[in-house]
Amino acid sequence: MTFSAVNTIWVLLGAALVFFMQAGFAMCEAGFTRAKNTGNILMKNLMDFCIGTPLYWLFGYGIMFGAGTALFGWIDPFIMKDYSHILPAGVPLWAYAIFQTVFCATSATIVSGSMAERTKFSAYCIYSAAISLFIYPVSGHWIWGGGWLADLGFHDFAGSTCVHMVGGVCALIGAKILGPRIGKYGKNGKPRAILGHNLSIAALGVFILWFCWFGFNGASTVGMDTSELIASASLVFFNTNLAAAVATLTTMIFTWLRYGKPDVSMTFNAALAGLVGITAGCDAVDPFGAAIIGLCCGLVVVLSVEFFDKVAKIDDPVGAISVHGVCGALGTLLTGLFATGISTMKGVFYGGGFKFFGVQLLGVGSVIAWTAVIITIVFLIIRATIGLRASAEDETMGLDRSEHGLHTAYSGFTIMADSGPEDAEPAAAPAMAYKAPVRREKEKAPDAPVYTSVRIICRPGSLEALEKAMNGIGITGMTVTNVMGYGTQKGKPEYYRGTPVEVTLLPKVQVDIVVSKVPVSQVIETARGVLYTGHIGDGKIFVQDVENVVRVRTGEEGYDALQSEE
Amino acid sequence: MTFSAVNTIWVLLGAALVFFMQAGFAMCEAGFTRAKNTGNILMKNLMDFCIGTPLYWLFGYGIMFGAGTALFGWIDPFIMKDYSHILPAGVPLWAYAIFQTVFCATSATIVSGSMAERTKFSAYCIYSAAISLFIYPVSGHWIWGGGWLADLGFHDFAGSTCVHMVGGVCALIGAKILGPRIGKYGKNGKPRAILGHNLSIAALGVFILWFCWFGFNGASTVGMDTSELIASASLVFFNTNLAAAVATLTTMIFTWLRYGKPDVSMTFNAALAGLVGITAGCDAVDPFGAAIIGLCCGLVVVLSVEFFDKVAKIDDPVGAISVHGVCGALGTLLTGLFATGISTMKGVFYGGGFKFFGVQLLGVGSVIAWTAVIITIVFLIIRATIGLRASAEDETMGLDRSEHGLHTAYSGFTIMADSGPEDAEPAAAPAMAYKAPVRREKEKAPDAPVYTSVRIICRPGSLEALEKAMNGIGITGMTVTNVMGYGTQKGKPEYYRGTPVEVTLLPKVQVDIVVSKVPVSQVIETARGVLYTGHIGDGKIFVQDVENVVRVRTGEEGYDALQSEE
Amino acid sequence: MTFSAVNTIWVLLGAALVFFMQAGFAMCEAGFTRAKNTGNILMKNLMDFCIGTPLYWLFGYGIMFGAGTALFGWIDPFIMKDYSHILPAGVPLWAYAIFQTVFCATSATIVSGSMAERTKFSAYCIYSAAISLFIYPVSGHWIWGGGWLADLGFHDFAGSTCVHMVGGVCALIGAKILGPRIGKYGKNGKPRAILGHNLSIAALGVFILWFCWFGFNGASTVGMDTSELIASASLVFFNTNLAAAVATLTTMIFTWLRYGKPDVSMTFNAALAGLVGITAGCDAVDPFGAAIIGLCCGLVVVLSVEFFDKVAKIDDPVGAISVHGVCGALGTLLTGLFATGISTMKGVFYGGGFKFFGVQLLGVGSVIAWTAVIITIVFLIIRATIGLRASAEDETMGLDRSEHGLHTAYSGFTIMADSGPEDAEPAAAPAMAYKAPVRREKEKAPDAPVYTSVRIICRPGSLEALEKAMNGIGITGMTVTNVMGYGTQKGKPEYYRGTPVEVTLLPKVQVDIVVSKVPVSQVIETARGVLYTGHIGDGKIFVQDVENVVRVRTGEEGYDALQSEE
Repeated sequence: MTFSAVNTIWVLLGAALVFFMQAGFAMCEAGFTRAKNTGNILMKNLMDFCIGTPLYWLFGYGIMFGAGTALFGWIDPFIMKDYSHILPAGVPLWAYAIFQTVFCATSATIVSGSMAERTKFSAYCIYSAAISLFIYPVSGHWIWGGGWLADLGFHDFAGSTCVHMVGGVCALIGAKILGPRIGKYGKNGKPRAILGHNLSIAALGVFILWFCWFGFNGASTVGMDTSELIASASLVFFNTNLAAAVATLTTMIFTWLRYGKPDVSMTFNAALAGLVGITAGCDAVDPFGAAIIGLCCGLVVVLSVEFFDKVAKIDDPVGAISVHGVCGALGTLLTGLFATGISTMKGVFYGGGFKFFGVQLLGVGSVIAWTAVIITIVFLIIRATIGLRASAEDETMGLDRSEHGLHTAYSGFTIMADSGPEDAEPAAAPAMAYKAPVRREKEKAPDAPVYTSVRIICRPGSLEALEKAMNGIGITGMTVTNVMGYGTQKGKPEYYRGTPVEVTLLPKVQVDIVVSKVPVSQVIETARGVLYTGHIGDGKIFVQDVENVVRVRTGEEGYDALQSEE
Repeated sequence: MTFSAVNTIWVLLGAALVFFMQAGFAMCEAGFTRAKNTGNILMKNLMDFCIGTPLYWLFGYGIMFGAGTALFGWIDPFIMKDYSHILPAGVPLWAYAIFQTVFCATSATIVSGSMAERTKFSAYCIYSAAISLFIYPVSGHWIWGGGWLADLGFHDFAGSTCVHMVGGVCALIGAKILGPRIGKYGKNGKPRAILGHNLSIAALGVFILWFCWFGFNGASTVGMDTSELIASASLVFFNTNLAAAVATLTTMIFTWLRYGKPDVSMTFNAALAGLVGITAGCDAVDPFGAAIIGLCCGLVVVLSVEFFDKVAKIDDPVGAISVHGVCGALGTLLTGLFATGISTMKGVFYGGGFKFFGVQLLGVGSVIAWTAVIITIVFLIIRATIGLRASAEDETMGLDRSEHGLHTAYSGFTIMADSGPEDAEPAAAPAMAYKAPVRREKEKAPDAPVYTSVRIICRPGSLEALEKAMNGIGITGMTVTNVMGYGTQKGKPEYYRGTPVEVTLLPKVQVDIVVSKVPVSQVIETARGVLYTGHIGDGKIFVQDVENVVRVRTGEEGYDALQSEE
Repeated sequence: MTFSAVNTIWVLLGAALVFFMQAGFAMCEAGFTRAKNTGNILMKNLMDFCIGTPLYWLFGYGIMFGAGTALFGWIDPFIMKDYSHILPAGVPLWAYAIFQTVFCATSATIVSGSMAERTKFSAYCIYSAAISLFIYPVSGHWIWGGGWLADLGFHDFAGSTCVHMVGGVCALIGAKILGPRIGKYGKNGKPRAILGHNLSIAALGVFILWFCWFGFNGASTVGMDTSELIASASLVFFNTNLAAAVATLTTMIFTWLRYGKPDVSMTFNAALAGLVGITAGCDAVDPFGAAIIGLCCGLVVVLSVEFFDKVAKIDDPVGAISVHGVCGALGTLLTGLFATGISTMKGVFYGGGFKFFGVQLLGVGSVIAWTAVIITIVFLIIRATIGLRASAEDETMGLDRSEHGLHTAYSGFTIMADSGPEDAEPAAAPAMAYKAPVRREKEKAPDAPVYTSVRIICRPGSLEALEKAMNGIGITGMTVTNVMGYGTQKGKPEYYRGTPVEVTLLPKVQVDIVVSKVPVSQVIETARGVLYTGHIGDGKIFVQDVENVVRVRTGEEGYDALQSEE
């Protein structure tokens, strides 16, 4: 057989890039969730690919691309049959098989984001398997495998519906059945912001995904050996990039107007929304259409995230439902409006009438129906058997420890435990009446020296000046601790993805000094001189007796231990 | 029209890789700055691409590649005209347009690094727009769009001048107009090191940039359909890699000799310096020339960073001015010396005389002049209208909160506030004379038990031994806190990018133990036995009375609360 | 000369991807080691590439690909001779030279992982140079340069032996000569888990490596201009991905069975093990063979990591010996069993008899012998001259500071110092007998107010409820500190890479409240009500006298300072 070098290079390059999307998803999902679940979510992203790959080889590919019927390919374990009816011109079977494998894994990995931080790992492995094994391949057959939607002229170039919306629907059903994370909704039902732990890697994930999307969309021409394919791939590249940029810009401006400040995490989400939206029609619209699709996705993703968070009260930690589900459907439908006819079909706005749009609508609806029904059955079976959700105790402790015995994903870093379940009512403590104890008096001598501890709680920014001032009055040692002071945020609320952030603990610095020779009054007055600004938050100073001080190295006690330099 | 598959694959692959440089810049700039500005800098890197993309589509591409005049292309909104006069052979318009879009965005993104941590986000969006909309396109027209420098034979293969130096000049003017970050210069005018918060992602950024540079330089052949182009692309790959490696090696050795130790962050910077330097002539020099260009860049980047930091006192947090501006100009000029004639022009050292070198000099000078004048006007207009610099309060608080309402980019991590402005004089505190209070004496009984708190401040490395020893004498509970002890660094100073690092707070561990049955003297003597090494820094022990202790679970008080295991 | 566009594109794309493996190794090695050595390990990864690149240009390439003899190419400084005898069809010299350069650097970089956290930087630079300069090129000549193993029919498609095993053997000898990290083995010789500091970037590193492996293996066809090459590259892509996925899945299940929970870090390692294993025969086996090779690597990597950790007691922080050395050899041998004849040679299980397997065995054995002998000599010379291992003091302090003067790679983050050397016996403290001091009694008045400090140590998850409850009884200020409570982990041990993790410090929150008006008894009873669950770990409450309190802003003292809101 004669193969085409450029077609195969194009398809293999696409496969490598689409594989790399796994890194993007892993970084995005890890970064937008809490540190205590990092290992778990990385593992889920790795495993859906590693479970999906052999299963797609086992059955998925055959179900999707077998000649079979309009509804189902065929059962062909390990891809042994002939697929020449469906292979792109000049592309070997294994090149096409790896290309399709990585697309399948993309669909599976979307779900882990919306179900993050509370799903049992064993349950995740099972439903991820179900998606790769038959849910994705069946609807994939309809669209790309020569099935009934393909016959009708449904157009989903690189998979807004076939890949992203399938993932997004599973994400929605999963998050709904699972229920929100502990603490996500207050007693009053109001959503609370749960901040992600690492915005840097989340942003990196978005950049990686955008980069890989050039392979996802661009290589979906599955060929470069004709001028038409070359021109198409070029337009796909331009449109993909433009839609993503416009969606991001739109969300940045929209959140700025809506929340008073441009929201970082939502804006990064919007890049993905634009990419998902343009995926169905990137070959069929012109740059104006791409820009408008980007604009729509940039607006809709914000409203959709808010809707699921505040109205539907479905807890989706990374916005996967809105990005992949909603914008996947939206992009597919908008293709029915904006297709210019360049790749044969014309949209409503380009004189194509409503037939093509109707097919797009039918395709979206039928894929939603198929996916929703089957994944619901899968989730309900899992819930009834091994269980779907981690125990409240495991969830509070973090899935890294409970599911993987991983002490922490960030060994050595001090990580604040997040506040626990609001509604976890403490048990009733057995009655106890506190009685201030009577103290035995120690021997005392009227002329013994007094050692006094002065504890200063102040703004972190004042530390350096305080250090200098204390040094200036002869203080030879101090201990500095980063603490959190209780207080209420003044001014406008801060928003995280549209939800107000409750902050009552503000960063403070605690400086402990023990003095004997230097008078306490001098320490306090000097400190006040340095710390005073006249604004709330200048800090407090606590004075306490200390019984004794020992210097470890010399064994000196009391006054002597405080004098010399250490 | 007949398109070339290999040419278009090459150009599109290059476009994807050059897009991915945005991830490299984002990680680099975020990593080399402070945690409190992480969200802001990631957002800036995202937005310059997302603002630049539509604007380059709107006007930039037409200005740069329109047939127009020697100075200016044409105004062609949305790239509607015919560009066949300038398109590479066999490459569709949209392939070339996306390729050029990502180059433009690279130029814009350079500026965010040097102006990091103190620029208003709205101002950033505006000047970033100006760069993509006309500053870059105009000088780009001169060099790559068939303008006057192209006619003269100016050689800037992949954009040392056209992309990097334009970005670097804007970075320089911006950082100068903006002024240094609060706290960067002491009262004596000496620069102070402000360490980046995440070297891992900064290093990742450099690796990503190097990877993508194979696309930046390699794909700038914009074709692979002749043996000449194929040979050229091969040489470009080899030269690009070699120059970067030699520059990095040079800086590693140079900083080792200069500061006593090989500087990590400067060495990573040097890789970029070498890459920027080789970009102009990577097709025109042989590997020896590439190695020498790398060597020059490796030396110059160190001296240049020091010059701007210490002499010019222009605060450039990531070294963008030196890497992109200085090495961009340097590489362009060195091409005039080392071009071998392989790509037609010959440098001074290869018998080409001074004419070609003169053209290189003229090109560099005129692009500096154009860029500097226009960007200065842009910055001054912004400063006079919406303002360029964040308020001191916002800057101290961090731009994540002030500009984006983002509480922290690293939720859950304990992040030390950095020291505030040295010169922010506190207000005069109203007079107050501290009087030690007289205390009311509590009831006491001669035989009531005494609870005593022993606080041990010691080296973190001694914690494990201390734990074991305390366990050995029956101590059943302790609380461990990571604190910072006040002290002065002994020995040679440490350097960060050539600037000495001031460290007066050293990490210590504070162990709090409350005892009743176990004698205080035994605790102290045991602790001393474990902690004593005879060196300064062995720690101190504080003894304090405690009035009472309660165990929450059982309600036991005093002595009982300290006895049983918890 | 006529070059092939598709062949050269394929080789250059491969070169770029294999270069990017450096990012993968850097992230992986940094993530799996401790924060205090981050800058050092990033620097090592950068420098082995930057040292290797010019040295491979200087001598390595000539030694490896020179026509010379069956044992050695030739000495050809700077690649000046003719290599047309060995260049792939239609690929220019510099394309092949850069492709081979990045493979060489991969071999060198493997070593840094196993010798991490304790090797002197100068020593590292030297042995890294030795690997690139002659160790790798000589055995590379045998296999890929037309040497004696090539003549015998040894098959190592993309370098399981040639690249990975060479690196792995150096890693083994290096780690053995160097000895384990301080604290890795207890006095009883039992290994102790030393957790990596950043699992997110380690996982990213694995994803990057997998992505780049498509270039490493796929582009090793070094051509795409015949249908055979195109089909081969396609199979290579499919096999590479499948083997990695199966290996990962196998390890996930195997560690789940073995340790009770699926181990995150080992499972990520397994992906690399599968990739290394399939590298030798990815063109020669069918997907079943690839799956079986993956399965074998997934099992063996776990047992091998345990063997080196527990039995051989060779401390390999990142598992490089097992992944690259053991699985490299294993994959090469399994090719001798599973080769189907598709690329001419047949394995034992496909009717090829034992001759081919014998050649594979001979190749593995002779490369081990060559590498082990030479690298041992290199290490012993280094140890005898400049020294190989960092001093114990430098190692404990961290190589970032000692080798690079880098204060921290994560400025601003609070990083816990890890426990120091168990066997570092403290010096004997000079005798000292602690005598409780006699205290001078302060003046006191029977009716002076009492200020009392209540310190509550509790579960982090209870903080929010405690805050609310305290607010409810009129407490207007509190200071919250993240501390570690001493306690022993209950239940099953947690494993990190097969080694039990010792945890005696559990995260707690310390809340300090000072009261005057609010009765202490009310604070304690309210706190108990909120904190009580009846389980061990509910916390403790300490009560202490406070002499005085000052509010900085107003100068109010005592009772007044505690009343109004701040």
